[in-house]
Amino acid sequence: MKQPIMVGLLGLGTVGGGTLRILQNRVEDIAQRLGRPVQVKKVLVRNLQKPRPVVVDPALLTDNPADILEDPEISIVVELMGGIHPALDYIKSALKAGKNVVTANKDLMAVHGRELFELADAKELDLEFEASVAGGIPIIRPLKVCLTANRIEELKGIINGTTNFILTKMTQEGSDFGEVLKEAQALGYAEADPTADVEGLDAARKLAILASIAFNSRITLNDVYVEGITKVTARDIQYARQMGYTIKLLGIAKEIEGKVEARVHPAMIPDCHPLAAVNDAFNAIFVKGDAVGETMFYGRGAGDMPTGSAVVGDIIDVARNIINGHTGRISCTCYHQKPVRPIGEIVCKYFLRLVVTEKPGVLASIAGVFGDQGVSIQTLIQQETIGDSAEIVLVTHPVQEDNLQKALNILSDMPIVERVGSVIRVERG
Amino acid sequence: MKQPIMVGLLGLGTVGGGTLRILQNRVEDIAQRLGRPVQVKKVLVRNLQKPRPVVVDPALLTDNPADILEDPEISIVVELMGGIHPALDYIKSALKAGKNVVTANKDLMAVHGRELFELADAKELDLEFEASVAGGIPIIRPLKVCLTANRIEELKGIINGTTNFILTKMTQEGSDFGEVLKEAQALGYAEADPTADVEGLDAARKLAILASIAFNSRITLNDVYVEGITKVTARDIQYARQMGYTIKLLGIAKEIEGKVEARVHPAMIPDCHPLAAVNDAFNAIFVKGDAVGETMFYGRGAGDMPTGSAVVGDIIDVARNIINGHTGRISCTCYHQKPVRPIGEIVCKYFLRLVVTEKPGVLASIAGVFGDQGVSIQTLIQQETIGDSAEIVLVTHPVQEDNLQKALNILSDMPIVERVGSVIRVERG
Repeated sequence: MKQPIMVGLLGLGTVGGGTLRILQNRVEDIAQRLGRPVQVKKVLVRNLQKPRPVVVDPALLTDNPADILEDPEISIVVELMGGIHPALDYIKSALKAGKNVVTANKDLMAVHGRELFELADAKELDLEFEASVAGGIPIIRPLKVCLTANRIEELKGIINGTTNFILTKMTQEGSDFGEVLKEAQALGYAEADPTADVEGLDAARKLAILASIAFNSRITLNDVYVEGITKVTARDIQYARQMGYTIKLLGIAKEIEGKVEARVHPAMIPDCHPLAAVNDAFNAIFVKGDAVGETMFYGRGAGDMPTGSAVVGDIIDVARNIINGHTGRISCTCYHQKPVRPIGEIVCKYFLRLVVTEKPGVLASIAGVFGDQGVSIQTLIQQETIGDSAEIVLVTHPVQEDNLQKALNILSDMPIVERVGSVIRVERG
Repeated sequence: MKQPIMVGLLGLGTVGGGTLRILQNRVEDIAQRLGRPVQVKKVLVRNLQKPRPVVVDPALLTDNPADILEDPEISIVVELMGGIHPALDYIKSALKAGKNVVTANKDLMAVHGRELFELADAKELDLEFEASVAGGIPIIRPLKVCLTANRIEELKGIINGTTNFILTKMTQEGSDFGEVLKEAQALGYAEADPTADVEGLDAARKLAILASIAFNSRITLNDVYVEGITKVTARDIQYARQMGYTIKLLGIAKEIEGKVEARVHPAMIPDCHPLAAVNDAFNAIFVKGDAVGETMFYGRGAGDMPTGSAVVGDIIDVARNIINGHTGRISCTCYHQKPVRPIGEIVCKYFLRLVVTEKPGVLASIAGVFGDQGVSIQTLIQQETIGDSAEIVLVTHPVQEDNLQKALNILSDMPIVERVGSVIRVERG
């Protein structure tokens, strides 16, 4: 058997453990597939003594990054530490030292993708990151290779398992956000500090990566409008169901008239849309191309083994490129520079729930404000009296976000409007 | 701009037309992506005078295959004629002449895959066939590249749009097969001679291709057990719904204890399974791997533009390989030879509908025959009198197919059994 391809792992947490376990389980298959084995030479950990979720020869462990980054035998560095620092520096060092890189790091790719690709391209190295979005679901390579015949029109994804688990439970049980969050934390589906998930930040990072590939134009985290699910109530979900809609936290990216919009927020989608049936911690990415039409990619978006599946898939691909002497064959695909459409300029329908003082003429006053701002009401769903107040629930016709927000600002200042209860975008499907 | 990569198309029917249209529409994007344009130099057609669904310079058309197969400038031959002859000879000639090949031909790949790959490998040429299965849905490359970290446990696909359209209509409208077939033919969803679709042969070809890749072992059309949908009745669908199941024509491939089983037949799947919601002419392939868990790939399985999307995706990939001098990087992945499990050895649950003479003790006699053959009844769903007859509807526990068939043969010969109405396999999900 020929010399093995040597791999160095940075990090041995959840994903690192899954990756190492798969590489161990599949030693023979990988060797057969490539005609050459892939071997883990070193694993960087912070604490050499810490117990590990996977059987690992202690001789493989090191707490010195130079043992990987400066070892000339190692040709693939696999970064699974997460976060920006020190991962960014380690990846840069690896690329500068002529090593190919596989990473699962969405934080990094969503912000520093361009500079990393520049380094990789300069040395014709591979930089692969399938695991950074939607765990085990193949989506980066399908977008970068399989769907290249298409002008991608839109991409809509359920790309955060925690929030999908919470919204699914809220929908099935009629419970409110706070309760279900506690349940999700107890089950390990949500972290002790759930901010990055429930506020939509995690999904926004993944959307930035997907949108950059889909539209061949660099979209970074700052370009993505973000709104989490903490304000979604059981009542909103109930109204949505009544209308034949499901509420999901969606990452949405579209190209319209040369501008790219990228936004993460709770949205109502029709029950018949394939994304509406994606439940629990599952992820799915719906992609619409001008030639292929509607496609969807579904699976587990997190977890040691699913994410490890994507990491090891990349390692095998990079190893093949090393063996055949053609690393760097597909590099950055952002060969356009398209302007980003600010959230104020997007056009969509809105579901609104307003709590107002119960007295004659209130609806007329509200409708007047909407009319002045060019917001027209498509359906008045409910006008219900609750004590001295009334709840007005409606869906608008498609309108520009700026106009809607102006109307809501004016309404908020009106004495008859007690509060704007909910504002949820309605996606056509 | 550098010299274009020259392409020759064999065939300008539905898929050929879609492919040519996409190549025309995306000229600039493809050139930008690859740094070099892709140009169609010749298109082989049978009849030069026939009107075409796409605008094409008459100078491109030829009825002489040598104009493509012997033109040294053409480096990619795209075969979109379908059928075995003369497509097989043309592809062989192209490979022998050192040309890379892209094909959408499932008939060919399901039977002659091995010999074509041997030719391609000998010359380090690309042979790509993403469009041969499930039209525009990326599935070949995800299996060949993205999911390689996994031992694939099973693959279940809705891979024929015509039958899925028919079964969806039958389910939604409660109609019988014959009626809906006529409707499908009128709408262009079924051909005048619908045999290949409704008898499951088209799906079997695609399943042979998918199973070969998923299990890294050559499975040909002859290895696939095939049963069509012509015997599925509105009544079966009604019973399925009552039990919380949906009837779909599935292509199922599994590896159990080193043997591969591959079968196409109508099956009941639980309504909560992601495949149950795949309706109309849509296709989807559900893949379960030991690391990634459950994944699904969904989209349009036919049509000029979706299939053209897959063809042009392959052309771009091959062109990239030509430009970088590394064609043939991923060749045949059937590096194992796994035995095929005959249909008699498979184990599953069965839905049975028997029409028997209405008299005391009938159920006991039938249960006795089942018991003797090791078939145990999980649920007796219905025992209904219709005139002098009774309909007995039941679901068995998992049992080996041979035993079930033995029991049914004995039952068929019993005077009290008027007929075995339906035998439909029930998939766990």
